[in-house]
Amino acid sequence: MSTERIAQFVRPEIQALTAYKVGKADNLIKLDNMENPYSWDESVKQGWLHRMQEIDVNRYPSPDAQGLRSRLREVMNISDNVDLLLGNGSDELIQIICMALSKPGASLLSVSPAFVMYEMTAIFTGMKYHSVPLNDDFSLNKELVLSEIRKTKPSVVFIAYPNNPTGNLFDEAELCEIIETSPGLVVIDEAYYAFADASFDKYLDKYDNIVVLRTVSKMGLAGLRLGYMMASPAWINEFNKVRMPFNVNSLTQASVEYALENIDMFNAQTEQLCVSRESLFCSMSEINEIKCYPTKTNFILFRTAEGQATKIFEAIKSAGVLIKNLSLAGGALTDCLRVTIGTEEQNAFFLKALRESVNV
Amino acid sequence: MSTERIAQFVRPEIQALTAYKVGKADNLIKLDNMENPYSWDESVKQGWLHRMQEIDVNRYPSPDAQGLRSRLREVMNISDNVDLLLGNGSDELIQIICMALSKPGASLLSVSPAFVMYEMTAIFTGMKYHSVPLNDDFSLNKELVLSEIRKTKPSVVFIAYPNNPTGNLFDEAELCEIIETSPGLVVIDEAYYAFADASFDKYLDKYDNIVVLRTVSKMGLAGLRLGYMMASPAWINEFNKVRMPFNVNSLTQASVEYALENIDMFNAQTEQLCVSRESLFCSMSEINEIKCYPTKTNFILFRTAEGQATKIFEAIKSAGVLIKNLSLAGGALTDCLRVTIGTEEQNAFFLKALRESVNV
Repeated sequence: MSTERIAQFVRPEIQALTAYKVGKADNLIKLDNMENPYSWDESVKQGWLHRMQEIDVNRYPSPDAQGLRSRLREVMNISDNVDLLLGNGSDELIQIICMALSKPGASLLSVSPAFVMYEMTAIFTGMKYHSVPLNDDFSLNKELVLSEIRKTKPSVVFIAYPNNPTGNLFDEAELCEIIETSPGLVVIDEAYYAFADASFDKYLDKYDNIVVLRTVSKMGLAGLRLGYMMASPAWINEFNKVRMPFNVNSLTQASVEYALENIDMFNAQTEQLCVSRESLFCSMSEINEIKCYPTKTNFILFRTAEGQATKIFEAIKSAGVLIKNLSLAGGALTDCLRVTIGTEEQNAFFLKALRESVNV
Repeated sequence: MSTERIAQFVRPEIQALTAYKVGKADNLIKLDNMENPYSWDESVKQGWLHRMQEIDVNRYPSPDAQGLRSRLREVMNISDNVDLLLGNGSDELIQIICMALSKPGASLLSVSPAFVMYEMTAIFTGMKYHSVPLNDDFSLNKELVLSEIRKTKPSVVFIAYPNNPTGNLFDEAELCEIIETSPGLVVIDEAYYAFADASFDKYLDKYDNIVVLRTVSKMGLAGLRLGYMMASPAWINEFNKVRMPFNVNSLTQASVEYALENIDMFNAQTEQLCVSRESLFCSMSEINEIKCYPTKTNFILFRTAEGQATKIFEAIKSAGVLIKNLSLAGGALTDCLRVTIGTEEQNAFFLKALRESVNV
């Protein structure tokens, strides 16, 4: 029986896991996964198809994606002192970092709640995982983070900026202190960069122990899977050794390159989403039965009355809108739900469903 | 300086590596990387663009790629008892297997020469790597493999079938003995399945410790990056836990699904390549200065006179054809070059350049 071999040879910490589950959204308005709700202008779409047509899919992708990296440098204003590494989503870049740093006994430190893939990847790569609880308002407990860093000497600290799933930006000066205190690497994960008006890229020259991660997912290209890492050439040189040579396929390379040539459309969508976010946040804040947390992302985390989250989640789902029930994760997220900013129409539909659900 | 932190925190075995290099092929006939040389019929291409147009790239990919997996099952005649796992190329599947099995002290065994990513991935995931030399004719040294398996008790054995970079199929009965003797998992990597007329898929029901890997790269879709793993549900369940949830992007999922609906075109290309392979093999075998090895793949490995490989490689390159200089890898591959089967025209061009180069 394969079960006996599995018990003997598969790492026990993997056997203990259950696979990551993603909700089904058949016929629902999808406000569960931080996706940009807008489609492309028809002319942009036609230009993209034209570009697709030119790709030789019979050939391997460019292993260094030179064209895409140049375009990213230009559009994202990346300094010449900074090197770039591309991944199959940020997920792969997180994995690459952990694989390179997973010496025996090495640990990864993050906060709680944090993006779940930090802990998962620590498990995948055999690193110890330490997490430091955030304050009740989801701000950093700086003293606690610093004392944990001094105690556990993590090889890498992962901080999402803004934080996922809480939505807030941590204090910049406090993060700098964390970077200065960390003996190892600090990864600033800027997945929500497009919505945040804030970045640590300006510190890439100052600190020799930081890496900034970004993704094109939240700007409207989640289906393409492209993440990018910015760091000093010395760090990128090490991480590049662990990268699989053809990790970014030809269609994604060409599509993101094309999208960056049409960045104005995506910027306009992002601006619209920021306006919609403020408006939805105001409307939600007027609902007495919930508490909304400030956000610099394309989602809003909110807390329901005790024990009501799943009931409200299901009522909203019955009304036709899928959001995310974070209460199931427990801990500080108990009673919390998360809604992604959609189109104005989708937000209005959600708001109506939310209002009705809290009053049932 | 980041160099000091790197020295302290990056795993020493990663620091010792140099990144995988891929040759540049500007303006050369590319016969270096086992790519299908054919493009798509215009009607197939138009149908593909139509399919691309329907994709919502703003949405995350299907995490379980249900549609593509169903189509693969159907087209590849995969038995209901067998489960499927998809990866960003076989490279990612190799990595997933190793991550799941890399218990402290665990080892990976393969043969030499073998596909380089087996050893690289063992290093990436912290497994010990054992390799058993093939016989001079690149057949398995079965007794040596069996004795190494008994001695090292590898968690996983990787065998490419046919073998890369030698091109030959190992003896089926000998491989069965290896599987029966192995305490852990045996991965049969069928990257060249399309050209081989042979598969271990029929043993998936018989043996509880095998996994079969395939890729769509060699059938003509190298740019898309899709590998698939076939194994019992119990093994797939474990490996799926280590898979990143959105590892296969939307464009690749839809494109491979579409390609499988047009499998006849790809099968015809593969058949043509097999015919061309036999013809090129015959012509090359008539050249006294080289020795060709039998192949069940879309490439031919050949041995030059002692110390002549790099000179011949460069002469062929000067004539406008890029092949692969395996002699640089040393060991059993010293004096060996590898040419990928191209179009009839490309093969003729290569053959002329080869003939001229050996007579200089």
